[in-house]
Amino acid sequence: MEFDLIARHFTRATPGAVLGVGDDCALVSPTPGKQLAVTTDLLIEGRHFMPQDGPAGLGHKTAAVNLSDLAAMGATPRWATLQIALPAADDAWLAAYARGLFRMLDGHGCELVGGDTTRADVRTFGLTVIGEIDPGRALTRSGARPGEDVWVSGAIGSAALALAYRQGRLFMEQIHAAQVLPALYLPTPRVELGRALVGLASAAIDISDGLCADLGHILARSGVGAELDFAAVPVPEAARGYLHEAAAIEAVLAGGDDYELCFTAPAPQRAAIEAAAAAVGVRVTRIGTTRARAGLDVRDAQGKVMPVARTGYDHFAT
Amino acid sequence: MEFDLIARHFTRATPGAVLGVGDDCALVSPTPGKQLAVTTDLLIEGRHFMPQDGPAGLGHKTAAVNLSDLAAMGATPRWATLQIALPAADDAWLAAYARGLFRMLDGHGCELVGGDTTRADVRTFGLTVIGEIDPGRALTRSGARPGEDVWVSGAIGSAALALAYRQGRLFMEQIHAAQVLPALYLPTPRVELGRALVGLASAAIDISDGLCADLGHILARSGVGAELDFAAVPVPEAARGYLHEAAAIEAVLAGGDDYELCFTAPAPQRAAIEAAAAAVGVRVTRIGTTRARAGLDVRDAQGKVMPVARTGYDHFAT
Repeated sequence: MEFDLIARHFTRATPGAVLGVGDDCALVSPTPGKQLAVTTDLLIEGRHFMPQDGPAGLGHKTAAVNLSDLAAMGATPRWATLQIALPAADDAWLAAYARGLFRMLDGHGCELVGGDTTRADVRTFGLTVIGEIDPGRALTRSGARPGEDVWVSGAIGSAALALAYRQGRLFMEQIHAAQVLPALYLPTPRVELGRALVGLASAAIDISDGLCADLGHILARSGVGAELDFAAVPVPEAARGYLHEAAAIEAVLAGGDDYELCFTAPAPQRAAIEAAAAAVGVRVTRIGTTRARAGLDVRDAQGKVMPVARTGYDHFAT
Repeated sequence: MEFDLIARHFTRATPGAVLGVGDDCALVSPTPGKQLAVTTDLLIEGRHFMPQDGPAGLGHKTAAVNLSDLAAMGATPRWATLQIALPAADDAWLAAYARGLFRMLDGHGCELVGGDTTRADVRTFGLTVIGEIDPGRALTRSGARPGEDVWVSGAIGSAALALAYRQGRLFMEQIHAAQVLPALYLPTPRVELGRALVGLASAAIDISDGLCADLGHILARSGVGAELDFAAVPVPEAARGYLHEAAAIEAVLAGGDDYELCFTAPAPQRAAIEAAAAAVGVRVTRIGTTRARAGLDVRDAQGKVMPVARTGYDHFAT
């Protein structure tokens, strides 16, 4: 059967599992004393990726968006199961997809232990990832307290700037566009940073819906508000010349798909956080402060609160 | 946002989890000393179900096909994560889907701890289920030895007979069709039976692709062959009058979607297996014997080997 081809591309040695791909279930032995962090994401053609997107990039992204959820909890990736639906099984296409997927999973010690392959007109990829973490140590969305620092990793807005450029909503020099495009196709989940922040950050989330929307989830679940300094938000070097454009501002504050971490922490942790981030080679930047009063205000360089439309923040959408 | 509606329908109390729906990951504490059995299945409109199929039945089926994989390992269901993609969020439709899903999950003590909801033109449902089992006790596909009994639970072919009837490939009296149709829409995963067979059965699988095809997986993974007695295969009462028809024979031997268990066991376990099955209220029937020589032969009432085409068994499709 043609679809055995698929199974073959995704069957590899799984020394970290008791029983891998090929039976009714995968069998794994959790590390004694650990809790499990479980997350799942579905990528559908035409919605999460375009028909012309290449297979290696899609494999990379399938793994990256799920690993990013584990990163936001501070968990260590262990096992994954893949769901894959395709109109036909093309050997070269599958080999490239598997290469992209396994490069990302292997890089984080995550083993593919099972899955389900099926035929469908619309290409669909789903991954469920299981990680481990010490009990009571997970970075949830609900731990932020008033008066804490708001931090982000990396640069914010790259993926959304690239998308705005590709869709013709933002003019960028090609040399600048080339610098942000990789973020759209090859996001980097901040797994090591997430683990390093355990015990330091009070709350964390990965930025998939946009900086203000995702920080908004932390604020709502923690029962606090926050104020951000737009000038402090780290943007990709290539974006500096475009920040007078509404589309560029929106990409930074409301654009998704960056998969950087946004987290909160008490001020006394500043030095420890800088050191932890430096140890894993990721830049982190303080961009604001939480407060007791609900809501999220972003202030421009003149100290004026920026219009809500540009921030993408909605009090009620949590 | 409209899609918050979806999240609301699937967010329930999860006393068996540390952290349920609503954060980056779900957090659960595995029972000390247990192994985890993990399985995942994707149901796509037009392939695994029809546009006109009702939501409660789809919810039921989403849960049932995954729980059936745990049943085939003898594992105890614990936690599930749901992926759901829909063109629009319809409140009444979602309520009915959730009702069907939770009725099945609740009935097996399985908690929905997380998920991913998205918009898509083609309705797609994916579930990943995690169960627990004592180390070394799982019923794999590879434990069958020559000279063992081959068993099945329940009646075989109901779902395929119903499908053949619905597609006009098999004439059945309406009164008979009505008796097999529920199997197609509301399959019953044999979770309790699977657990009861731990320590008694040598190998097990659930029948999703067809009796001969699925038994074939056990044979291939165990390195044995088998001989079945067609007259011994338990068929639904309503099918008895149609077994002279090729389409009916094919439904029994090669039809899928029954989600009964097929398992092997040494002959000395017969009484214990009958008792274990009776204790959980499920009928089990011996239908053949494993042998050292590879391959699968099904013999008719005259002792003649039936043609391979009707059995759906292929030596090389494992």
